[in-house]
Amino acid sequence: MKVRVSRKEHFNAAHRLYNPAWPDQKNREVFGKCANPNYHGHNYELVVSVTGTPDDGTGYVMDTKILSDLVRREIIDLFDHKNLNLDLPHFKHLNPTAENIARVIWDILRPHIKAELDLKITLYETERNFVEYPAD
Amino acid sequence: MKVRVSRKEHFNAAHRLYNPAWPDQKNREVFGKCANPNYHGHNYELVVSVTGTPDDGTGYVMDTKILSDLVRREIIDLFDHKNLNLDLPHFKHLNPTAENIARVIWDILRPHIKAELDLKITLYETERNFVEYPAD
Amino acid sequence: MKVRVSRKEHFNAAHRLYNPAWPDQKNREVFGKCANPNYHGHNYELVVSVTGTPDDGTGYVMDTKILSDLVRREIIDLFDHKNLNLDLPHFKHLNPTAENIARVIWDILRPHIKAELDLKITLYETERNFVEYPAD
Amino acid sequence: MKVRVSRKEHFNAAHRLYNPAWPDQKNREVFGKCANPNYHGHNYELVVSVTGTPDDGTGYVMDTKILSDLVRREIIDLFDHKNLNLDLPHFKHLNPTAENIARVIWDILRPHIKAELDLKITLYETERNFVEYPAD
Amino acid sequence: MKVRVSRKEHFNAAHRLYNPAWPDQKNREVFGKCANPNYHGHNYELVVSVTGTPDDGTGYVMDTKILSDLVRREIIDLFDHKNLNLDLPHFKHLNPTAENIARVIWDILRPHIKAELDLKITLYETERNFVEYPAD
Amino acid sequence: MKVRVSRKEHFNAAHRLYNPAWPDQKNREVFGKCANPNYHGHNYELVVSVTGTPDDGTGYVMDTKILSDLVRREIIDLFDHKNLNLDLPHFKHLNPTAENIARVIWDILRPHIKAELDLKITLYETERNFVEYPAD
Repeated sequence: MKVRVSRKEHFNAAHRLYNPAWPDQKNREVFGKCANPNYHGHNYELVVSVTGTPDDGTGYVMDTKILSDLVRREIIDLFDHKNLNLDLPHFKHLNPTAENIARVIWDILRPHIKAELDLKITLYETERNFVEYPAD
Repeated sequence: MKVRVSRKEHFNAAHRLYNPAWPDQKNREVFGKCANPNYHGHNYELVVSVTGTPDDGTGYVMDTKILSDLVRREIIDLFDHKNLNLDLPHFKHLNPTAENIARVIWDILRPHIKAELDLKITLYETERNFVEYPAD
Repeated sequence: MKVRVSRKEHFNAAHRLYNPAWPDQKNREVFGKCANPNYHGHNYELVVSVTGTPDDGTGYVMDTKILSDLVRREIIDLFDHKNLNLDLPHFKHLNPTAENIARVIWDILRPHIKAELDLKITLYETERNFVEYPAD
Repeated sequence: MKVRVSRKEHFNAAHRLYNPAWPDQKNREVFGKCANPNYHGHNYELVVSVTGTPDDGTGYVMDTKILSDLVRREIIDLFDHKNLNLDLPHFKHLNPTAENIARVIWDILRPHIKAELDLKITLYETERNFVEYPAD
Repeated sequence: MKVRVSRKEHFNAAHRLYNPAWPDQKNREVFGKCANPNYHGHNYELVVSVTGTPDDGTGYVMDTKILSDLVRREIIDLFDHKNLNLDLPHFKHLNPTAENIARVIWDILRPHIKAELDLKITLYETERNFVEYPAD
Repeated sequence: MKVRVSRKEHFNAAHRLYNPAWPDQKNREVFGKCANPNYHGHNYELVVSVTGTPDDGTGYVMDTKILSDLVRREIIDLFDHKNLNLDLPHFKHLNPTAENIARVIWDILRPHIKAELDLKITLYETERNFVEYPAD
């Protein structure tokens, strides 16, 4: 049986929900106050989980210190204190919903995690709204 | 790969654990202080999760604003500041354990969620006691 | 300079807000859904704080094990899994608002705490509603 | 002895730390990544506390439902899903640090709270950074 | 469909990460400050989850009071206020990483849980580091 | 009116409660399982609060980035992943109760904080046991 190991990090960012292929009126209708053209923001809590068999020598699936350093270098330095729509090329043509942010983070981290380990992203946009990718 | 989106709401309710098919003495033996005939109560934290593929236009599996409105209209208005045993017909012949409350909530919400989305209920009776339905 | 030591406990109880000196109609107007005649309930989180000078021998203002045992014996055994309006004589003529519950708890505990220690009660009715007595 | 009653609300907003009287270079030196010209954001948790003597009839210092409605009408509707620098006139010439946001909120709410009640604002910018105004 | 029921308990313990088959220098390189020969410690939060079909009579998958009593007797009494490396025979030849602690706890509890119920352990070493066994 | 600004940090440490001036038997009687000679440990959450008047130029009482850097350099580097009894000279003759740890931290930090700012330490030994120094 495998073990899942999780590390929680956080970043603070501004964003707005906006589909550039739609007229402003439709964006306002669909996204409501989340479409505010001057942006709003969140404290995102990010949980990165890896699943595998603990190593006999270390007792680790993956050293959470190494996992934390990886997430900080690849994700936190890129996302923290940024405007997701303006500062990150990933969201130039992609609406930064929690669903899409989680998928972007998974895509960035996947090549840095050993192939035999499964990777899962949980992203809290607020304490009451959160997403998991992939779903179990 | 699919995304799971979750929305957390809460309600405050009174209940007692009691099987009307049993004599009082057996109820007291099985349910202990939870069988107090004058009831006790909880702040229930309810997480409603839907799993599916994000829409290309919105980037949403389901708009959490719409999900929150649905849960408030169908569940919170029904359960909040109520006595589950006395005020809700669902528990007239069903013991309001966390397990059964979660199943009742799932049954109420399922017809309101698109068929292609999976639905899962997580219910915290206290910070230290919680249930998930269906189990992963 | 003194040190304040705090211990957090919890209890689950049913109650309704109701002033027996008022007609039902006025109770409904003032207390809204909190006046539901069949009661509702909460997970109360109770923080008991004592302030004084640490003892030179123990390094304690008060042993939190002793404080916890005291709170469990005098308060939790009395309040937990109870209906505050029906099961506790303290609220026979006193509306069990968070303010009044905190004052009742303070009155019960005060004689059990050494006179040279200050006592303060913080009571969370929900995560978002709480009271402190006495106010700093 | 008085009782303090607190109600917690939240809002999500974008901001940047920036003193318009200073050159950009000094803003970058003093505020670091918080000065990002494209903004970042937070989930602000706001605790509004009022202190006074409970009313004999209601048992309330202040009905937290009324307090919550007031805070939502006067503060949340103004701050939520906004850019504090661009959308709120209060911060046109005032740097939106947590300290200054708390003072602005206090100034807005003070006239709406009965004169005999003390008012205190606690504002969490993140789970790890928070301010209280006035300090006890 | 089955229901998962979870009960959260906690214990406080000292430990160090150390593989006795390795020289001290390699232990320091791999485990860093976690290898401090004088130990460090944690408040471990332990969630024990059982999955099955609620009983028709009780409405319980398993009474959380019985589950809590079991976990306290078999796990908390063994682990709480202990040095995992020195006081528990289980870790005499096994490095007490969160992964290994979760597996030891699962092995201890499994024979005490009915065969038709699935068992899962979630262990928080800190609020930001946690493991699940078995992974879903 | 002044503003209080707080920054939360954490450290993980082992300790035992033990008064070296007392025989072992008395230590066991007074401190119970906290006197375990092989130590136990905690995830300590440390809140450092400074109170003063915000600067007109920055809007800060104190930059929480500077406060955080100070606390990490002076406290976290000293306490984290350590055995308080064995690794810190401060507790060679002082019992490391939460009360005494808070006072030691205050004494270390006070000279590094501007004289016109008040300093307060809040230390959580567990989620349910915490101390404040000085008491308000």
